[in-house]
Order: sequence, then structure tokens, then C-alpha cells
Amino acid sequence: MSGIAQKLASNQKQVAISEFFEKNKHFLGFDSLARSLITAVKEAVDNALDACEEARILPTIKIQITKLDTKKDIVRMVVEDNGPGIPQKSIEKVFGQLLFGSRFHAIRQSRGQQGIGITGVVMYCQLTTGRTTHVRSKIANEPTAAFVDIGLDTRKNKATKANAGREIWYNEDGTGKEHGTEVTAEMKAKYQKGRQSVWQYLRMTSIVNPHAEIIFVDPEGERHHWTRVTERLPTKVESIKPHPHGIELGQLQRMIAESKDLNLNHFLLNNFSGVTNRARKELCQAAEIEGTRKMKSVKGDDIRALLESFQGERLFNGLPVKLLKPPTNCLSPIEEMLIKKGLSKTIDSRFVTTLTRVPSVTQGNPFQVEVGLIFGGGMAGDKPVEILRFANRVPLMYQQGGCLLTKAIESVDWRQYGLDQPGGKGVPKGPAAILVHLASTNVQFTSEAKEALADNAEVMEEARKAMLEMGRGLRKHLEKKKKMAKTKEKFELINDILPAIAEKSAQILERPIPELSGSITRIMSAVISESTTEWNKETKQTDVEIILFNYTSRVRAYTILATWPEKAGATMEKNETGGRKEALGVWAWKLESLQPGEKTTITYSLGGLERGDWTETEILFRGSQDVIGATKMDEKFLQEIRRQEQILGESGVVEPEAETDQKQAETVEKTDEPSEEKIEPAVAPPDGQRTLFGGDV
Amino acid sequence: MSGIAQKLASNQKQVAISEFFEKNKHFLGFDSLARSLITAVKEAVDNALDACEEARILPTIKIQITKLDTKKDIVRMVVEDNGPGIPQKSIEKVFGQLLFGSRFHAIRQSRGQQGIGITGVVMYCQLTTGRTTHVRSKIANEPTAAFVDIGLDTRKNKATKANAGREIWYNEDGTGKEHGTEVTAEMKAKYQKGRQSVWQYLRMTSIVNPHAEIIFVDPEGERHHWTRVTERLPTKVESIKPHPHGIELGQLQRMIAESKDLNLNHFLLNNFSGVTNRARKELCQAAEIEGTRKMKSVKGDDIRALLESFQGERLFNGLPVKLLKPPTNCLSPIEEMLIKKGLSKTIDSRFVTTLTRVPSVTQGNPFQVEVGLIFGGGMAGDKPVEILRFANRVPLMYQQGGCLLTKAIESVDWRQYGLDQPGGKGVPKGPAAILVHLASTNVQFTSEAKEALADNAEVMEEARKAMLEMGRGLRKHLEKKKKMAKTKEKFELINDILPAIAEKSAQILERPIPELSGSITRIMSAVISESTTEWNKETKQTDVEIILFNYTSRVRAYTILATWPEKAGATMEKNETGGRKEALGVWAWKLESLQPGEKTTITYSLGGLERGDWTETEILFRGSQDVIGATKMDEKFLQEIRRQEQILGESGVVEPEAETDQKQAETVEKTDEPSEEKIEPAVAPPDGQRTLFGGDV
Repeated sequence: MSGIAQKLASNQKQVAISEFFEKNKHFLGFDSLARSLITAVKEAVDNALDACEEARILPTIKIQITKLDTKKDIVRMVVEDNGPGIPQKSIEKVFGQLLFGSRFHAIRQSRGQQGIGITGVVMYCQLTTGRTTHVRSKIANEPTAAFVDIGLDTRKNKATKANAGREIWYNEDGTGKEHGTEVTAEMKAKYQKGRQSVWQYLRMTSIVNPHAEIIFVDPEGERHHWTRVTERLPTKVESIKPHPHGIELGQLQRMIAESKDLNLNHFLLNNFSGVTNRARKELCQAAEIEGTRKMKSVKGDDIRALLESFQGERLFNGLPVKLLKPPTNCLSPIEEMLIKKGLSKTIDSRFVTTLTRVPSVTQGNPFQVEVGLIFGGGMAGDKPVEILRFANRVPLMYQQGGCLLTKAIESVDWRQYGLDQPGGKGVPKGPAAILVHLASTNVQFTSEAKEALADNAEVMEEARKAMLEMGRGLRKHLEKKKKMAKTKEKFELINDILPAIAEKSAQILERPIPELSGSITRIMSAVISESTTEWNKETKQTDVEIILFNYTSRVRAYTILATWPEKAGATMEKNETGGRKEALGVWAWKLESLQPGEKTTITYSLGGLERGDWTETEILFRGSQDVIGATKMDEKFLQEIRRQEQILGESGVVEPEAETDQKQAETVEKTDEPSEEKIEPAVAPPDGQRTLFGGDV
Repeated sequence: MSGIAQKLASNQKQVAISEFFEKNKHFLGFDSLARSLITAVKEAVDNALDACEEARILPTIKIQITKLDTKKDIVRMVVEDNGPGIPQKSIEKVFGQLLFGSRFHAIRQSRGQQGIGITGVVMYCQLTTGRTTHVRSKIANEPTAAFVDIGLDTRKNKATKANAGREIWYNEDGTGKEHGTEVTAEMKAKYQKGRQSVWQYLRMTSIVNPHAEIIFVDPEGERHHWTRVTERLPTKVESIKPHPHGIELGQLQRMIAESKDLNLNHFLLNNFSGVTNRARKELCQAAEIEGTRKMKSVKGDDIRALLESFQGERLFNGLPVKLLKPPTNCLSPIEEMLIKKGLSKTIDSRFVTTLTRVPSVTQGNPFQVEVGLIFGGGMAGDKPVEILRFANRVPLMYQQGGCLLTKAIESVDWRQYGLDQPGGKGVPKGPAAILVHLASTNVQFTSEAKEALADNAEVMEEARKAMLEMGRGLRKHLEKKKKMAKTKEKFELINDILPAIAEKSAQILERPIPELSGSITRIMSAVISESTTEWNKETKQTDVEIILFNYTSRVRAYTILATWPEKAGATMEKNETGGRKEALGVWAWKLESLQPGEKTTITYSLGGLERGDWTETEILFRGSQDVIGATKMDEKFLQEIRRQEQILGESGVVEPEAETDQKQAETVEKTDEPSEEKIEPAVAPPDGQRTLFGGDV
């Protein structure tokens, strides 16, 4: 026995982070030859998009894959962007050092977070082919581009450099390149087609990055081009300070130990989001610490008390201290209309609905869920629906089953929304695709490969709510289609057959043909609305026409309401019927007296849009008798829109009720696995999210 | 634009590995409060088991969980082992430094590999409670134990130490503790019961570590005790050298650069497993490099050529160079009988079958798959079967859906083996539990939390083959049960009713009762075998009785064969019928003339076993007429047993055919996702794995 402990201990040594990831390269997404190529492209393209957005440049990215040795599966990848470029002395660290980057400590939405991705690619190339990665980069205020071959000393986690120099960088057309970065990497990998492929990754990227132009030259030399569908860059995201609700004790201890603030008052005001001057005072009182205490003297139990005040475990005047929610300008959702554009561009379908939830918060981190649903068209009806998962605008291509977003989809009983789903659980079947996007300052993946989201009760709930709301939109669409088809059938029957019978009968009886319009009205006994939304090539506007037929025997009065993309910057033109704005994106017209057998027409045009932006208008009504082809106004719907308007108006900073806040914090702590019971029932009433952009396309 | 590149670059900095894992603590298994506690227990227990095995100590591990603050979810975990202990100066590194350990570079089967686990626990405690972890450790040749409070400086990845000292460590009974380690950690966590709980983790651990004694005191003070069911420690594993088939170019370059060998000949012989002197010569020739070349001169294209020879891309005499398989003494499977014991101890059932495949190799790493199936008993019949996944004797509790082992189970059509399975895909339903264990020198998990295995075509194939074979065992068992029940029914009918009819008829006709034995034989027209296998309390042996009835009208001749646990060290006793050894674990008796209407009995006893070790004997026969209750000998079965004997006899080092080897290497490179097509059809013939330990329990 003696000596065995020492013997065992003597074998222990420190492993470098690079050695760790070299051995565990599958953690980074390098597990099979096909996936390794996708991972490499993904890391390079993610970096390019992040850099362009930070520098406010509309990205143009070119990806070229060449097979160098088919027998040995050696592939070359070249990714070129028009980003700001990387200063010469930074190149080696960005490409040759793991865990080096700018985004790790920044609290804001970005694709890259960890400083692992592209260095992982360099490491994989070196390991599998022994070759270095060639990087060329030019920044705007230098005349030439820097180039260098980068490798990785895995024992030291340092870059190795070779063949460094400078050169003039010419574009294909012979002009000089202004700025950008080009990565040339040669690796053991395999190019393949299909559901999990470079092509599919780029196609999905283009859906959620409609502002990017992506050109892909595949190994056969074929050129695939996804054009830019909007010139609008995503909203610029700002880094925010951590929110007290997301702080853990160890972190707070470190912040205090490293603080250079004058005293606790300054510390609280300078280092957190959501802490107003009032909140600062109340936090100090709840924690029973003087705000004027020097930071050096804030220790042990003080820190614990402070954290308990943060978390509402210590009270001020018998209540948890009210904190503002973190600002949400750290997020940049894609937004409904752009998702719709992206989807329509890549998937042929009959019906598209999209939905962006208002931002929410989990553990102090703002996040936002967006969903889209495409139905009909050429999609197969007997297969599971296609699931398109995204996090911070990056497509997730692997580990679908283990991803929170998939679980959110599976948790919904889709049968009530018109999709097949054996047992009411699991991925539904039908001619549909479901898109779900999480934008967050801290996306929690299950591993470094960033392919699946880890469980989180709040994100699950938001995603599920979005699905339910979208499901209702689909059901409404299908029901409306059905109802309209029935009414149309009845209408045609009455309008065609009744006069024919009347004519025949009159002939036989040798009497005059009777006047039928009154009878038709009585038989129909309905008010019908019909609407068209059409792109007008000449005026470059979207023309909308709403017709209301009164096929009843009484005078009718209605308020007709229509949705329109006001939030997206559309303008209401040639609206001769007048009316008024009812809420953001909802216009209303009062129709006082609609005579029996008569029809009324409302027409207007929408300016400021592009073709395909707006293809169906939702018609709603207020009034006592149902209108076929329109939806009765749910006043809660309007209330919710107004609440959202308020939130957006205040640029994301809303004083929440303390109770709500507190409840959220508790959910974070008490819920360990996303629990079925906590989630709202599938038959819950609409919780007011708008599905403004539903429509046939 | 100017300056943006510099501005972006100026924000970049290096992140410490500890900071990385602090932010991404969910990668390490700290994602929910309940799971965090399981993860902490798991890391401590894994370390304890590894240390005990390395020091050849039968482990006794005590785990105590106490709730310190129910409102704030603060929990204390104490894990004490009787391992070799850790020298005082090593404690801080083991517990306070990430990626520090002895097992990262060693190629052998061990639970811990990465040097992350227990330091992750220390980090999590510090982050969530601000508290240090108390460690006490005593090694055998020191009079006192060392103790210290360990924390983690995440910015530097260094331990912080406090309150270090030495003390006498007393056991509960007042005696002095000889050696061992005790970890006391306080963390934000939640104790819960159920399928994913500390209790379940320990229960599963005891199944695959039958040599360990585990005592668990839960927060209510209840004491759970899993006793040691074998005094035999797992086979000692030896570290092996890397195998040429598992080497990648970057790694070979580094090995050559760091080599201190005299020349290439020495390098090849000293640093690899599987390279004989013949292979060494042939590799040099195939690579066209002189074996006497100094290592410094082996560069660039030489290294590439060498790797191509390793991988069979460069040929010697037109063929790939033959290499030995890596030795398999780096693996320590649990072995069939111990799995069965473990399962029987914890799950009540009617039928247990287990199977250990012979070791195989993927990418130069030896691995071995073991499976077990439990059927019947008190288990629910309408639910998915329970899946018990293990890797290197560690239970896997999370991410079941994303795990290779689950996928292997799902890929089998279980309907043909008597289990329900809607659509012939997915986890089967029925009153059963399936155990699957992967032992490997390099278990590839999907993340640091080590809860699911990443895809690998060879492991998938081995696991699937094991499932198929086990499924056949289950089917055989169910069919045999059915057939025996039918025969028994017929037998009872004939034996009870025929005489009754005869008697009644005789009475009515007033004639003597006829002799019926001849008629019964003619009606039955079958040879029936019955066997019992019973533990004899007095002799401490397992008594086996085999009876053969000849209910046919002709003389019969058979060879009867029976399985017995020879490999596990059993001895054949009191076998008066004699016979001979047919193969390892198979005994045979020749029965020359079995008269019509007669029966023959074979009895013997098995020594060297414990109660419960052997509860059912499989009876086989050679002969022309079927024997109900026995299985016709499949000669391939014997051939396979003999092949395995040979493999085992050569202690794992077998010269494979070059073609087979080559084919394996190709599969590694060409297969990116485990492909359905590559796997043998579900109705494949038995590939000869023995299911020796099937039986009712």
C-alpha cells in the first residue's frame, strides 16, 4: 500500500486547453468528415457576419469548397468577406489561440461568444492534414493586406506563424479590395449534399440573415447565390451591464474584489443594469449596509446580504426591491416581416405566419423568441414537419432531438391546429415547416459545438407560447379557408341555380320570370367580406380592397378593422373611406348603414413596402352579426398591442410590478427541469401576441 | 470606417479556462439545481472508484447529503472513500485546477479522463455559495491526515488555499482511519427523488461496480446500503501505447518532433502498440524511408508517407502493412456474471440474459460492449423499457435521446424478439430493462458533462450486434416457455384424462382397465427434456439435474450438451454420467440407447460459485429427432466459442487478416454518420456471441 498515493500523484500533470480540445475535437463539432466541413464553414461565416454587423457593413460573403484529394478526403475551404478586416498583429491571436476574443465578457447578442470557433478550425486542419491556415486581411486605412500562415502550438495554446507579409489584394474584377478577411483552410473532410450540408447551412443562414449576400461555389464549380433581400442592417446591439437577477455569489464576490468604485453606492450604480438611484438606496437598506462603505470593507456576510437583496430574499419595507428589467437594445431580433421574406425566398408554400415575442428575461439575461410557420405548397404531407432551428441568427443543424427548441415544438398538441401528430406528442406531421429563433445575450448550448440549446424553463415557456399562438394562427387560416369555401359554394348555388329554376318554372307555367334578389338575400342571410391585397407594379404600392356584402334583410352597422405593417414603416395612401388608427398596425372604418342587398367597398394603398412584403390583410369587425370572411375583434388583442406599443416606446425599459419580477426569479431557482405542469395549457386563450404577417404568398 | 477594425480588435482578450467553464457550467452538468447535485456526487464517487481500483483497494464509499437551508436550496455533500489518499501537496491541484490530472494522456479504461470533474464541483460551490470545499486526505505511510479548504481563482486557473493543517482522522467507531479521502462541498442544489436522482445514480453505479460497497445517507437521515457482491476487483488495466490506426497527422508530427529515440526504427517500436519488428520494417519500406534515419531528419513529406503506411494507403508488396490489434488489457469489462448479479440485486425479474462481446477497435482505440436484458417480474408491460446506459462503469443519466447507445437500441426491430415497438423503430415497450455498457480507452462523449456518447460507426455496430444477439436469446426463452407450456398441457391431458376415460369405459363395459403406457407414448410421440438448476445450501454447490423422457415408440440416441460457467471458475463435481468437455463452458454426454417409454437422468454439481451466480442451464442436443425443452446444437456456435477461446488464450493479441484491418480503417474514414445500410440486417444469423448466462432468477 505504502507509496501508492505518491505514485499515483506523480503521474498528474496540467493539460493545455488546446490539447484538451484536440483530443475532444468532437465537442467542437469535428466528429465526422461531413460535419467537420460544415463546422468549419459555419465558424468562418459566423465570424464574417459578426464582424460586418459590428462595423455596420452589409455583408457579402463568398464561400468556395474544392476537393484537393478525393481518395484521402482532403478539402480546401476559402471564405472571403467584406468585413472591417483584422489588424495585422491581432490575426495570430484570433486564429491561433483558443479562448481569445472580444465577445466572452460582453453581454449582448452575437453569434460567436467563446473565442473557440475559428481557432478550432485551424487546429482541426493542422491535426488532420498537418497544414497551416492561410489568412489574408485588409483594413480600410492601410494600403495593403496582411497575410500569414497560422498554426497552433497545442501544448502552449499559442499561434505559430509562417510566411507573413503584405500585398495588394485584388478583387476578381481587378479593382483593389477595400477591406475584408479571407481564410483558406485545408482539412480532412467530406463534401456532401442533403439535409445536413454546407448548402443547407448557407440556405438557412440566408433565411435569418436577409441583409447578407452569400455566394457559394461548390466542388463541382456550381455557383449558388442567395441575394440580399433587405438593405437594412440588423439593429445595432449595445453591450449591457449584468442584471442583479443574473448574478451568482461567486461572481459578485469577484466584482467587489476587483471594483475600483469609490463606495458601494457607486458600485451599484456603475456596474449593473436595472438599478436606479431609488433601487440602489433600497438595496443598501435591505442588505443593512451603508451605501457610503468603501468597497474594500464589503466582505463575507455583507456580500451575501447584498446578493439576498438582489434576489428579493431580503426585503425593503416588507417587499423585494423593485428593479428595472435589463434594457433590450442588446438584442436584435430578425423581425416578422424579414423572417417571412427569408422563408418565402427559400421555401415554396401557400401560407406563412411569423411571430416575434416581446423580449423576456431569464437569470438576468434578456432573450427573445421568434417563430415562423410555413404551410402547404409543395411540401410532403405524410412526413414530420421540417424544423428550422436558429440561435442568434445561426442555423442549428445537429442534435435536433436534444434541443430545447425541438422540445418546445414537441410539447404542443398540434392536432388541434390542423397538423397530424400521433399520440399528440412529438414532432407533428404535415406539409409544413416550423422555424424557431432564439435571440439572447447568453445562449446556453449543450456543448461548444453550439448545435442544441440546454434546458431552461423560461425560454421553454416563451417558445411554447409562441408555438401555441402560431398554431392558433394556422387553425384560423384553415378554418377561414374552409368557411369561405363553403359560403362560396352556397353563394354560387343560389346565384346560379335559383335563377335557372325560376326561368324553367316560368317557361313551363308560361308566366314571367320572378324577381329573385330579395329571396336570395333571405336565403343567404349573411354578411360577407372579401378582401384582396395585391402588389401594383406601376405605383410600386400594395393595393388593398375590402368589400362587404349585406345579404341580410336588415340594415347593418359595423366597424371594420384591417391590419397593416405600420411597424415596418408602411404608409397608408389613397384611403378615401378615411377611418382612423385604432392601434399600432390596425386601421378602423366605421360603416354606419349597410342596406340589405347592398355592398360597400373600402380601398387604400400601402406605400413604403417592397413586392412580397405584405400579401394578406387580416380583416376584423366589431358588430352584432357575424361577418363571414372576417374575425370578430377580441378587445384583449388590442390591449396587448397597446401594451407592446408602450414597451417599444420606452425602448425596452419598463418598470415591472415587483411581484412579477419576484415570481420570475423564483421560477429560475425552483424549476430544475422544464416542467409540463408549469406551462400554460394548450387551450389557453390568446395571450395577445400578434400574428400580423400571416397570409397567402 | 477607418479605425473600426482597430477598435474591434482592441476589445479582444484571453479568457481563462476556468472563466470559460464558470460561464458555461452547464457544459459540466451544472444546469439545474437537481442535476448539479447529481453531478457533484458523480464526480466525487467516480474519483473514489478510480483511485481505489488503481491502488487495488476494494472500495467502500459513503455519501451523505444534508439540507443546510431549504429556502435557499443550500445543500452539503460529504463523500468519503477508503482510497489511497492524496499527498498533501497534490490536493490543491487535484481540486483547484482545471485540466489537471493523470488520466488525460493515459490510454486505458478509466472513469475520469479530463481533469475537470471534481474541480468543476469546487468551482460550482464557490460560484453559488461563495464557500470553499473542505478536503481531508490521509495516505497510508503518514500518521495524520492533511486537511485544507480549497477554492478556485478562475482568472488564473489556480487553487486558493485556506485553513490547511493536519489531524488524526478517526473513524465512526473511534479507530484511526488508515487511508482515504473525504470531500465536503456546500452548494446551491436540490435533492430530489425519482428516475434522475442521487439515489438512482448510486443504484446504477452499484450494478456495474459489484465490487464496491456504497452507503448513502439521504437528507431525511435514511441509510441506503448497496453491499459488495464480489470480492474480486475489476481486472487491473494497463496503459497502452497509441495504435497507428488511431494516429492523426498533427499528432504524428508532434510525436516525431518531441521524440528522443535514436532513429525511426526505435521510434516505431517504442511508441506504438501493434507494431512488431516485421511491421516496423514493412512500414519503413512502404513509406520509402530508411529505418536508420535520425528523427530530426524525418519531416514534412516523410511524416505524411509514414502516416499513409499506417493507414494502408501506401502498400508493402501490394498490400497494406499488417499490424497487430492493440492489446486489450487496457480494458476491464464487468463480465456477464457480475452484470447479472448486479441486475438481479436491484431489479426484480423473471429472466436475465447478459452478454459481453469480445473487444474491438475503433480509430486505434480498443473498446468492448456489454449488454444485459431483464424481462418480466414486476415491471410495467405498457411502458417503454427502462434503459440503463453506462460508460466505463459510470451510469449515464441524462440526454438519453442523444446517446449512441440509445440509438443502437432504437435501431433494432424488437417486435421479432417479443417486445412491443410501434413502427418497428424507437425504444421498445414491454416489461423489460435493457442495460448497455461501453468500456473504452477513449469514450467519446458529446460534452464535458459525459452524459451521452457521440456517434461512432464501429461502436454503433458492436452495440447493435450485441442487442440482436440478446434479442435472439429473449425470443428463444419466450419460445421455449411457450413450447414447454404446451407440451406440459398435452402431457397432463394424456396422463390424467386417458386413464380416467379408460377406467370409466371399463366400468361401463364391465371389462378390465386396459394397459395404456404404449398408447400414451404413441400419442405423445416426443422426446422431452426437463432440467433444474438449484442452489444447495448444505453443500454450497449448484445442483443440476437433466431428465430426458423418450415418449416415442423407437429407441433414441442423443448427445446432450449443457452450458456451465467454466470461464468464471466453476468446477464440475459429482458428474457420474461422465461425458467430456466439448468447448469452454460446454459439457457433453453421449446417450446411446434411450428405450421407448423410458427416462434417463444426468446429475452433477457445480462448485466454486456463490448463490445466485448460476440459475439456469441451457440444454442443447445433437441427434435426428427434436428434443422438446432443448436446443439443437448449432455447430457455428461452437466454432465461435473456440475462436473466442483462442483470442482469450492469446491475451487479446491476435494477428488479424490484413483485409479485415484495412476494411475497418476504411469504415472509420468513409462513414460520417452511422449509416443504416452498413449495419447487418436484423435477421442476420447468430454471429456466435454466447448468451451463457441467460436464466430464470
